[in-house]
Amino acid sequence: MMLSKFSGKNIQISPTAIIGQNVRIGDNAIIYDNVEIGDNTVICNDCVIGEPLNDYYGNEEQYSNPITKIGADSLIRSHTIIYAGSQIGHHFQTGHRVTIRENMSIGSHCSIGTLGDLQGCSELGNYCRLHSNVHIGQHSKLGNFVFVYPYVVFTNDPTPPSDICIGPTVGDFSQIATGSVLLPGVKIGEHCLVGAGSVVTKNVADFQLVAGNPGRFIKDVREIVDRVTGENHYPWPYHFDRNMPWENVGFEKWLKNSDSQIVMDGLLRGG
Amino acid sequence: MMLSKFSGKNIQISPTAIIGQNVRIGDNAIIYDNVEIGDNTVICNDCVIGEPLNDYYGNEEQYSNPITKIGADSLIRSHTIIYAGSQIGHHFQTGHRVTIRENMSIGSHCSIGTLGDLQGCSELGNYCRLHSNVHIGQHSKLGNFVFVYPYVVFTNDPTPPSDICIGPTVGDFSQIATGSVLLPGVKIGEHCLVGAGSVVTKNVADFQLVAGNPGRFIKDVREIVDRVTGENHYPWPYHFDRNMPWENVGFEKWLKNSDSQIVMDGLLRGG
Amino acid sequence: MMLSKFSGKNIQISPTAIIGQNVRIGDNAIIYDNVEIGDNTVICNDCVIGEPLNDYYGNEEQYSNPITKIGADSLIRSHTIIYAGSQIGHHFQTGHRVTIRENMSIGSHCSIGTLGDLQGCSELGNYCRLHSNVHIGQHSKLGNFVFVYPYVVFTNDPTPPSDICIGPTVGDFSQIATGSVLLPGVKIGEHCLVGAGSVVTKNVADFQLVAGNPGRFIKDVREIVDRVTGENHYPWPYHFDRNMPWENVGFEKWLKNSDSQIVMDGLLRGG
Repeated sequence: MMLSKFSGKNIQISPTAIIGQNVRIGDNAIIYDNVEIGDNTVICNDCVIGEPLNDYYGNEEQYSNPITKIGADSLIRSHTIIYAGSQIGHHFQTGHRVTIRENMSIGSHCSIGTLGDLQGCSELGNYCRLHSNVHIGQHSKLGNFVFVYPYVVFTNDPTPPSDICIGPTVGDFSQIATGSVLLPGVKIGEHCLVGAGSVVTKNVADFQLVAGNPGRFIKDVREIVDRVTGENHYPWPYHFDRNMPWENVGFEKWLKNSDSQIVMDGLLRGG
Repeated sequence: MMLSKFSGKNIQISPTAIIGQNVRIGDNAIIYDNVEIGDNTVICNDCVIGEPLNDYYGNEEQYSNPITKIGADSLIRSHTIIYAGSQIGHHFQTGHRVTIRENMSIGSHCSIGTLGDLQGCSELGNYCRLHSNVHIGQHSKLGNFVFVYPYVVFTNDPTPPSDICIGPTVGDFSQIATGSVLLPGVKIGEHCLVGAGSVVTKNVADFQLVAGNPGRFIKDVREIVDRVTGENHYPWPYHFDRNMPWENVGFEKWLKNSDSQIVMDGLLRGG
Repeated sequence: MMLSKFSGKNIQISPTAIIGQNVRIGDNAIIYDNVEIGDNTVICNDCVIGEPLNDYYGNEEQYSNPITKIGADSLIRSHTIIYAGSQIGHHFQTGHRVTIRENMSIGSHCSIGTLGDLQGCSELGNYCRLHSNVHIGQHSKLGNFVFVYPYVVFTNDPTPPSDICIGPTVGDFSQIATGSVLLPGVKIGEHCLVGAGSVVTKNVADFQLVAGNPGRFIKDVREIVDRVTGENHYPWPYHFDRNMPWENVGFEKWLKNSDSQIVMDGLLRGG
């Protein structure tokens, strides 16, 4: 390339930020106080990392920015804003213009698509993938290997407006398809599939496919067949391995590995 | 903070802009011609205030930018674009990356969440709250204390594409929950609740809960109980007061105050 | 205007970019390697044209940016990101903060609204209009004069997650109304209308109106009447001509013109 994304123009880095080895930072990026960035991570142009919380505007001089951690080997695409006070594991990726509010706990190998809007105070396990334009309300909890497709919203106020805030919970391996809304406090089990455009008003048991508005039980996901092969597709880890830790190993074999338990227990974070 | 959001870098302010006392303007912000900003307002980094209208591109030299007013004590978060030609009251707040087109009339104490997209030529009363990613088509009209939740869309063309443009109308205190679509010209009364994921095709009378696709009358909102207390929650102003003018006073008592009539008549704008 | 959008500040243009006559480029814009921009086109402030693909991050020095073409007389509004490797016709317009990934083929006279998110590897014919916040998954195909309204999503994975990727197809003149989701591989004919909030799970024949979740056949679009005139509105080209090539000519007469066949064959691109 004749023109680099990393020409070093207009970058601001707080003297209290801790930047790992071989980190690249794009033009116009800002790294605020008390941000810690792991080795080999790329922060693209126009990103804001450690965005000060609302208290900042009231008293800039006395304000102290909470610690923000982003793990190693991550790629934060341009115009992403990550507020101060979140802990994010390694191999993290964002699309463009992602907004992540404070007090998020995000495992390793997670990705958040373009325009994603995480409202803070929520937990994501390891290997979660949020596609474009997903909105996660406060106090949501996602397990490991939870994939969320475009324009899904996790809500949290059962009688709006109120001071009650109870987010949805989604178990390991579950898939929430495009444009669905999860109502406040719903619990979705493991290996579930929520069909596109569903409004989930009730809890969903393990292995259920639900769809519709309101969402209704359709069938066991283990009865769904692949359009191309005609074979059962779920549980999907047996049939999909791109960028998964069982890639080229097989899910069954990986489950027996010593490190799979660390991933499934959500303990990958520090790695 | 060791690093300030207001270091004065790359700010451009038109000589015809009128900036109030104690206004702070973030790095890379642009304030175009004929913008008026009230006292104590904060314009964060990378905001564009008074964005020129489409005519500008045809003839930059002869183009005259309409007046844009943003009231006192407002907080415009980063990367927000507000077109020229809108009037916005005091105590206005935006999230990040909000886009507000021309000829909007917005009351006082309103807020527009991250990624909000207001298409212009619409009216919001006082104390309206639009959460993240709400889309307001042209010629919509929202009363006072109308709260709109994420990914709601107000539409305006009954037979697309056509030259007819009739936006929805929403009465005082009504709540439009996540992911709902209001069809062109629907009139929603006062104290209504539109359930998440609804497609509202018909008018909704005062105090009605509607839900579903198409939206159907479910019950009177006064029959809905709070999940925690088990008591009736609506009309909500009797049970929710955070940042409302009746905070610590009580709704009933506030209604009898001399200034409540000014708020309810939508006359707070100049204050 | 006292303050110009084109003051020439912080612009970066690769020496391998080819910029047409009378092109204006806004402040802070970046034009990467091998971008070709047609005459009279306006690139507004903070746009990124020819954004390098993911391979760039692995080996910046050996990376070669694919060719990106944007036709003449286009207007790219601020903060739009267009990846390298797309071909876009003349008279193209975007709203703000649009994201267009690689390997898109977009005809002439198309527009993409604010926050639009085109995931790449898809085709749009001529005169397509995508309103705000439309998401087009990979391997989608839109004909000519297809209008897509806010918050519509084109999906492509029938059994998520899988390696199957089959996008929807939409025929000439069809209209996809607000908040609809098109499921993977659905084929929508010509002159169709998909009602707001629909989840389209099955193919739709020419001239059908479908609506609901799941989408169901409602009636022939030729039975739909205009709310104002009370007359049939569809096929809409007989009743709507704003910015259409038959403006002030009439659809019937235009169809008989020699150049209408070029438009309908999707061959306008080079013009």
